[in-house]
Amino acid sequence: MYEFHARRRIEFSDTDMAGVVHFARFFIFMETAEHQMLTGLGVRPGSYRDASGRSFAWPRVTATCDYLAPARYGDELDIRVTVERLGRSSLTYGFDLSCGPVRVAQGRITAVCCALEEGGVMTPVPLPEALVERLGQPLVG
Amino acid sequence: MYEFHARRRIEFSDTDMAGVVHFARFFIFMETAEHQMLTGLGVRPGSYRDASGRSFAWPRVTATCDYLAPARYGDELDIRVTVERLGRSSLTYGFDLSCGPVRVAQGRITAVCCALEEGGVMTPVPLPEALVERLGQPLVG
Amino acid sequence: MYEFHARRRIEFSDTDMAGVVHFARFFIFMETAEHQMLTGLGVRPGSYRDASGRSFAWPRVTATCDYLAPARYGDELDIRVTVERLGRSSLTYGFDLSCGPVRVAQGRITAVCCALEEGGVMTPVPLPEALVERLGQPLVG
Amino acid sequence: MYEFHARRRIEFSDTDMAGVVHFARFFIFMETAEHQMLTGLGVRPGSYRDASGRSFAWPRVTATCDYLAPARYGDELDIRVTVERLGRSSLTYGFDLSCGPVRVAQGRITAVCCALEEGGVMTPVPLPEALVERLGQPLVG
Repeated sequence: MYEFHARRRIEFSDTDMAGVVHFARFFIFMETAEHQMLTGLGVRPGSYRDASGRSFAWPRVTATCDYLAPARYGDELDIRVTVERLGRSSLTYGFDLSCGPVRVAQGRITAVCCALEEGGVMTPVPLPEALVERLGQPLVG
Repeated sequence: MYEFHARRRIEFSDTDMAGVVHFARFFIFMETAEHQMLTGLGVRPGSYRDASGRSFAWPRVTATCDYLAPARYGDELDIRVTVERLGRSSLTYGFDLSCGPVRVAQGRITAVCCALEEGGVMTPVPLPEALVERLGQPLVG
Repeated sequence: MYEFHARRRIEFSDTDMAGVVHFARFFIFMETAEHQMLTGLGVRPGSYRDASGRSFAWPRVTATCDYLAPARYGDELDIRVTVERLGRSSLTYGFDLSCGPVRVAQGRITAVCCALEEGGVMTPVPLPEALVERLGQPLVG
Repeated sequence: MYEFHARRRIEFSDTDMAGVVHFARFFIFMETAEHQMLTGLGVRPGSYRDASGRSFAWPRVTATCDYLAPARYGDELDIRVTVERLGRSSLTYGFDLSCGPVRVAQGRITAVCCALEEGGVMTPVPLPEALVERLGQPLVG
């Protein structure tokens, strides 16, 4: 199974008045690690217009996070990304976030590769072939 | 089942370059609706110190969101909050987010009532009795 | 001078580990109040495509904030917006943010009305005439 | 004059629907670069409790940013931090943010070293001596 590792230092603005990282920030940490993985695989993440003028985006269909221990300002997170499921248009990522030996969170995000039409309509399109080849995992469903 | 409704207008800073609300913002929308519900029930949400000097917080143990349709700048969201499960120290909220007749997302968050000790250690404590009474639902587990 | 008032409740996610509102959030508070003002004047704020298919945005050229007192979770802010200067393409807003009798911050933002061309190039265009009429202030420069 | 350089990759969640980095994010970029500088100088930034149990924080008294060119998703920012003014309790930082040869923004932030008392009251205290020595600049005012 393809696996990618990212690192990230917790910033002051990631925290809230309880003195720990705000729970919604973990979704940003996961998304950015996913984007670093895709970039490393030669795929454009985010939202973009290709050479032919078509626009694409990767909207999420589901996102979940289990919080196991608090993360704090200054901590360095290790983020392990795996591809749990490869569909025709969709990717399900698994995330493990640790701070040293302590696992702080685990999450899962399913994103869909979409064409972004005029008026903002999003239509699923097949995953980029190059990505499927690079991941080397069987497509499911 | 106790039910609460909140409304919220999408702001420019909620959006990303795909032209729609960034997926992580939905967790903020859910949290704020939860806090409005708790405040209305006479319970202090967030993180606070009580009259006796003890500090409390409501850390999340799990948060999930399914995205059904994009939400856009200027949209007004209706957020319906229900209490899906009432534990000894924990609450599981369900959220339905709609924009007019369109359901844009549904989510679930489990939060735990904790005492916040010196050094930032968080220890689960029983839910405030007044809250349990107000909700009028059986405790589970 | 045209004057607009907005109100906003501080959310948990606006805070940081120092126990107060994070300083960067005040810029979001100011921007949203500005947008509410423009919407009330019949002008489309944010970034949009008009009926003829042209896209527009209001990028900022400068933003500043002086912090006078901390704002805290649950506080309700009164935000007074004035138009300090009306240029051919630009607007300079002044902001006073108070919490009850306490002034917590004052800021200033200059935004420029721009056409958003292919490739993301932004070109200043004259302010909407209807806006200039509604504000009833002399153009400067 | 003391000078520090930081680098930062623009993330998807830094953008807004105009397709560029949201203006308020630049204040986060500046703050994080400041914190990296302070950490490198052996000073604890953010908000913390020292060995004797006293709490400290660095609230901002003013923050400003001039926007010179848009920054976009995937850009790598070079952030140059200088200390423009060293007061008894306060530091004024200057920031230059560039993307390759293009200057995208310049900013200034004044922060005050404060003791954080019970009840959240913040009282200015002299800057840490070690910091003043390391910066090697004359104190003003």
